Amino acid sequence: MSEIKKVVLAYSGGLDTSVILKWLQDVYKCEVVTFTADIGQGEELEPARKKALAMGISAENIFIDDLREEFVRDFVFPMFRANAIYEGEYLLGTSIARPLIAKRQIEIANLTGADAVSHGATGKGNDQVRFELGYYALKPDVKVIAPWREWDLLSREKLLAYAEKHGIDITKKKDGGSPYSMDANLLHISYEGQVLEDPAKEPEEDMWLWSVSPEKAPDQAEYLELEYERGDVVAINGVRLSPAQVLAQLNSIGGKHGIGRLDLVENRYVGMKSRGCYETPGGTILLKAHRAIESITLDREVAHLKDELMPRYAKLIYTGYWWAPERKMLQTMIDASQESVSGTVRLKLYKGNVIVVGRDSRKSLFDANIATFEDDGGAYNQADAAGFIKLNALRMRIAAKLGQR
Amino acid sequence: MSEIKKVVLAYSGGLDTSVILKWLQDVYKCEVVTFTADIGQGEELEPARKKALAMGISAENIFIDDLREEFVRDFVFPMFRANAIYEGEYLLGTSIARPLIAKRQIEIANLTGADAVSHGATGKGNDQVRFELGYYALKPDVKVIAPWREWDLLSREKLLAYAEKHGIDITKKKDGGSPYSMDANLLHISYEGQVLEDPAKEPEEDMWLWSVSPEKAPDQAEYLELEYERGDVVAINGVRLSPAQVLAQLNSIGGKHGIGRLDLVENRYVGMKSRGCYETPGGTILLKAHRAIESITLDREVAHLKDELMPRYAKLIYTGYWWAPERKMLQTMIDASQESVSGTVRLKLYKGNVIVVGRDSRKSLFDANIATFEDDGGAYNQADAAGFIKLNALRMRIAAKLGQR
Amino acid sequence: MSEIKKVVLAYSGGLDTSVILKWLQDVYKCEVVTFTADIGQGEELEPARKKALAMGISAENIFIDDLREEFVRDFVFPMFRANAIYEGEYLLGTSIARPLIAKRQIEIANLTGADAVSHGATGKGNDQVRFELGYYALKPDVKVIAPWREWDLLSREKLLAYAEKHGIDITKKKDGGSPYSMDANLLHISYEGQVLEDPAKEPEEDMWLWSVSPEKAPDQAEYLELEYERGDVVAINGVRLSPAQVLAQLNSIGGKHGIGRLDLVENRYVGMKSRGCYETPGGTILLKAHRAIESITLDREVAHLKDELMPRYAKLIYTGYWWAPERKMLQTMIDASQESVSGTVRLKLYKGNVIVVGRDSRKSLFDANIATFEDDGGAYNQADAAGFIKLNALRMRIAAKLGQR
Amino acid sequence: MSEIKKVVLAYSGGLDTSVILKWLQDVYKCEVVTFTADIGQGEELEPARKKALAMGISAENIFIDDLREEFVRDFVFPMFRANAIYEGEYLLGTSIARPLIAKRQIEIANLTGADAVSHGATGKGNDQVRFELGYYALKPDVKVIAPWREWDLLSREKLLAYAEKHGIDITKKKDGGSPYSMDANLLHISYEGQVLEDPAKEPEEDMWLWSVSPEKAPDQAEYLELEYERGDVVAINGVRLSPAQVLAQLNSIGGKHGIGRLDLVENRYVGMKSRGCYETPGGTILLKAHRAIESITLDREVAHLKDELMPRYAKLIYTGYWWAPERKMLQTMIDASQESVSGTVRLKLYKGNVIVVGRDSRKSLFDANIATFEDDGGAYNQADAAGFIKLNALRMRIAAKLGQR
Repeated sequence: MSEIKKVVLAYSGGLDTSVILKWLQDVYKCEVVTFTADIGQGEELEPARKKALAMGISAENIFIDDLREEFVRDFVFPMFRANAIYEGEYLLGTSIARPLIAKRQIEIANLTGADAVSHGATGKGNDQVRFELGYYALKPDVKVIAPWREWDLLSREKLLAYAEKHGIDITKKKDGGSPYSMDANLLHISYEGQVLEDPAKEPEEDMWLWSVSPEKAPDQAEYLELEYERGDVVAINGVRLSPAQVLAQLNSIGGKHGIGRLDLVENRYVGMKSRGCYETPGGTILLKAHRAIESITLDREVAHLKDELMPRYAKLIYTGYWWAPERKMLQTMIDASQESVSGTVRLKLYKGNVIVVGRDSRKSLFDANIATFEDDGGAYNQADAAGFIKLNALRMRIAAKLGQR
Repeated sequence: MSEIKKVVLAYSGGLDTSVILKWLQDVYKCEVVTFTADIGQGEELEPARKKALAMGISAENIFIDDLREEFVRDFVFPMFRANAIYEGEYLLGTSIARPLIAKRQIEIANLTGADAVSHGATGKGNDQVRFELGYYALKPDVKVIAPWREWDLLSREKLLAYAEKHGIDITKKKDGGSPYSMDANLLHISYEGQVLEDPAKEPEEDMWLWSVSPEKAPDQAEYLELEYERGDVVAINGVRLSPAQVLAQLNSIGGKHGIGRLDLVENRYVGMKSRGCYETPGGTILLKAHRAIESITLDREVAHLKDELMPRYAKLIYTGYWWAPERKMLQTMIDASQESVSGTVRLKLYKGNVIVVGRDSRKSLFDANIATFEDDGGAYNQADAAGFIKLNALRMRIAAKLGQR
Repeated sequence: MSEIKKVVLAYSGGLDTSVILKWLQDVYKCEVVTFTADIGQGEELEPARKKALAMGISAENIFIDDLREEFVRDFVFPMFRANAIYEGEYLLGTSIARPLIAKRQIEIANLTGADAVSHGATGKGNDQVRFELGYYALKPDVKVIAPWREWDLLSREKLLAYAEKHGIDITKKKDGGSPYSMDANLLHISYEGQVLEDPAKEPEEDMWLWSVSPEKAPDQAEYLELEYERGDVVAINGVRLSPAQVLAQLNSIGGKHGIGRLDLVENRYVGMKSRGCYETPGGTILLKAHRAIESITLDREVAHLKDELMPRYAKLIYTGYWWAPERKMLQTMIDASQESVSGTVRLKLYKGNVIVVGRDSRKSLFDANIATFEDDGGAYNQADAAGFIKLNALRMRIAAKLGQR
Repeated sequence: MSEIKKVVLAYSGGLDTSVILKWLQDVYKCEVVTFTADIGQGEELEPARKKALAMGISAENIFIDDLREEFVRDFVFPMFRANAIYEGEYLLGTSIARPLIAKRQIEIANLTGADAVSHGATGKGNDQVRFELGYYALKPDVKVIAPWREWDLLSREKLLAYAEKHGIDITKKKDGGSPYSMDANLLHISYEGQVLEDPAKEPEEDMWLWSVSPEKAPDQAEYLELEYERGDVVAINGVRLSPAQVLAQLNSIGGKHGIGRLDLVENRYVGMKSRGCYETPGGTILLKAHRAIESITLDREVAHLKDELMPRYAKLIYTGYWWAPERKMLQTMIDASQESVSGTVRLKLYKGNVIVVGRDSRKSLFDANIATFEDDGGAYNQADAAGFIKLNALRMRIAAKLGQR
């Protein structure tokens, strides 16, 4: 165990990170700086301050930041420009928040002269990787303390015993009634553990916290108009909004209509399969709408190249490589492709369905004169197709003829 | 115009191909063989025989084949093993039927000693390419007659006038009441033209023929269990079915629940964007379910490699390269990946939603012992993660340090 | 044949394009503007002016431009940043020049108010595609005249007869003694046709014009130091040079040492295989050296991503899509990767061999402390590797265990 | 340190693995089985038997196998079917041998009832990963002992001291005079360490053991004819040979002509860059020749798909994933592509150069009638190219027109 002087802890104020806080003080005998971020998880942050003070953290060592706008503007939106989905289904809600936490934690380490950082992610999951790859990329000599990989408090009972022994407040958080392992931010809320550990079992309805079921959603569809500028939504129904406002509003409307639930078995970076459930109401709408605006504004081959690279880009985010040069390099290309992705998309939301009902853009590449089934007045010469097909077929014809020899 | 002796026409019995039949007789002065296939489009075929006879085709020159099982078994199912989607949305319903038509047409050309083939696809669309690439790949010296690229009957009025002049029956087909340009087979039905030529406009509800709207779908969800063997569905709710039966039954259930509608602007191979609407009820269920069974039976890297190659595979099918060696080569790999893709998937269908509620397999790679949030009894050593992260971060740490110099 | 007012012809001054010039005047009865470029093909351009004047082209309609610097700076160098090779071997010497010709031709059309452009490429080759895709991308309504696809002068005899009949000077160009179909620019010279049409036959030694054979090259090796800035060579042996000077000098040194000959069967975009021989002395050196400087300055995953995308990028250039948005999009990414690709590479040239003997950079990511086989004083913790391997193996271990059930 | 009963050690008979043998006996107090393989490294194996016996290994616990044919047939040849090169240069000579060693070691563990395996690779390199991923994939519960990651004998001095103290024979192996860290097998010999740790320094001539320098190579070129069947060489100059004989003979001829030296900075899987020098005479010839036979027998798009996937395939081998399902899946596809890759390639070898001078095949797709610059008698219709270009340009034309609005 190396010598640590000061450690910046990603501190939620919940039981786990409170125990970690105490454990760091006890085991590492070091000064602890707490960092609590609002990334839209829907919890008050002031209780975290109080708890930290109660555990002896000095006021100047308590950092509480509202990162919601930065989160959506610099992380969520760039990711959606790529139409990123992991394994065909997962919208990367947890994955995309970790790089921001890591970045801010390192900034605070630099501000406070800390030589170490710590987080509450377990040794089995992806989050430890996402946090730590971020730490190392941004501050290569930082020391990382991952208590879950070090201590022996590996069950809830031991954790509670430790908390009680050290006088840590164990009253549950607002959503603490849930037996699931959860993570929330402005993009999504996730559930793991418990009954979900059997992939054959359906989750219970009361697990879901952000959305109603499609059955409970309104019987009346709702129409929505999103305005895009360079790949990002800038207005909803004609009202200009900040990035975080956009996402918050889409979450609210989507959740109301039963949109964005996902039940998935995914492949973790550390090697095992795990089952997770996710609610991503706003993100589900964003993905559908972004594809729609791209469908009229992107060149075909640009769109196809994006589609072919998307799984790799999504995997980079899933596995924690946001700060890696290859992710940045791909982002450069993706962002360049969005130059013309402006316009409006009209959607209909109804009981879990997001239905595109219209797209329009001054930058549209849809040319009705050419596409029409009616007489196009010579805009397109049908005879050209014969040569097009003939030359595209040539290599196969030669091969078939030679096969006949 | 080259000399043609005998031509095999893909003949639906509808107005367009009836005019083509006559036009071929008139212009090319050649013997015409008609080929009409049942690929699940839901029309009777005997009227086509009658019409052909009426236009002077001899009985032995009329071919009417039920290709439904071959279509699903050898075309649709292999494609779904790849989770193929074009441009993030389109399930390739039209694209996948063309190679089969082309293949059978060439077989008939070989049987009857015909030197030419003909089809009714226009010079602006993808289908001409799909047909003709198939023809050329399978019979490199065949002559291809594409009347829409040759004649001057480029409007509906001219077509009707020609038909009337030559005594062709112009009573409409069952679905002929639709003003849309349509295509149907066991996988889907498609709509183009008319109001759809403006991508900003929502299609009218009465355009859709195969599915009810989510609003009209039953208020009661329906559960469904699919059994997979090596990537293909072999049974529904415990009842073993043939491939065509599987798809027909899924279409029926899906359509009843408002599943599988799509409204899309897509990029055609011939260079323009076009707007199409599709109903693919069974296919939409198949895609979701196949991903679910793969999620517990496929290795992570195999799954990711499939995901990265999928857009290219889908593009090959969309653009008509089913019979090309690169499609076959990819198929070899995809099929090899499905060796272990067996098991059952439980789904819930409700008003447009296909919700996975369970997956199970004797070949499952999901290991509850390792994935658990509870104590795993040493199945997984959390400390391993530290080294894993450290080495994965090393290149970024070195770069960051050097950047600090 | 459409009405043409004024046409800009890519005019070399040789027999073929002189016949084309005359043919355009005769057949299209239009004003002809000639455009002759120096892209390093090693021919004097003034004879082209004289010939054009002699055929009645007015002085203000004759454009002769030295494009060598633009060619290397904006086309060759960006391409080499990608380590572009087509089909594992070809350095794209012809392909990369066409987009520049097309661009300048369109500029001249805009300057002179011409409504058409014309070139001397045949209907069987790639160059027609490269020229015309450029034309259409840069001036979508331009009319394109490709005489080889239109006229009946399809043999050398007919061409000569036409020339004689119309009083066109048929004395051969400097290299005109060669029976091969050739193309040259600052990057390479190519040979096609004649004995090369049998891929089993070795070309004769006297075909090669730019390089000596390895056998004839000096018995003494020569050392060379290239200095790179952001992926481009800026100095040779300490002497700062312009892009065109760099390439010219590398051609000279490389040719002297028998470097850069290639004998290849390649796949043309129009569908057939063709056999070509190439001399690319400077380019061969550049490719080897660029990989060497990248080897110490590029991040591993950035390098691998570049390697995986390179064949696609090279294919875009080969098939004429330089001006397409997907090529530009890839270029954005490639250029971004070159930010740190600066430093020096030392090479040894000897009888056809380009041998890297040293690389150095202030931006080097090579960390001798970590890479050393000697004691590294703790810079790298070997124990980390155990966890790294364990987690990377986990999915395979789980699968193997399940296979044992 | 876990309890070990019996361990199979990959034993070369050299100093390092002799010390490991002793150390395993001392530290783990377990029975040791030695496994020594002939994979063409060019050393006698009987001394290894003697040394093992001298260290108390019982005769039935000593395994000495000649794996040369299996190595070339099942590992080297399949890899060359893919034209695999890592980072544009490295022919994967070390990487490809490790999976075979791992496989045989596990077979011996199963035969002898051993519960552990051990190897002499260091904790900084790729080989530990390659060995251990193989072990875990083939026997998921095996225990792995990697002494270099466990002990404190981290310098040569300590190793020698340990050897002397325990009476281990420290006389050097035949090539033991070399100060470099080396690895050899039938595909290559590699050098690392010493002066090579500075990438700016040229290696000394006397480092190279397998090949003469180009300068010392014969002044007379040598011609060679390789016969291919389904992607593999089956005969040289008309003489049918086994796989290992093919490679041995190509090494001999190549080495004589100064072919196959490589000086490289590569990116290791464990995160750092390292400098290595390689001699791969036969492999260098094989790569060039395989591309040549593919150039006339492979379909264009198949070849391009192979090229795009090659870097990924090569990376899988480099990083040790030979036994992973994704490597096998890619191999399935690559092998399928080789069905038609049969014929002969003629090469000229001269002072480091491998020059293709002819290729021929009954399966050739090269069609001289179509490729010819002469009149082709209508085999190819040049007019087709106009339509081909027009439609390929259409999307760019539409975009350009819209840009003009």
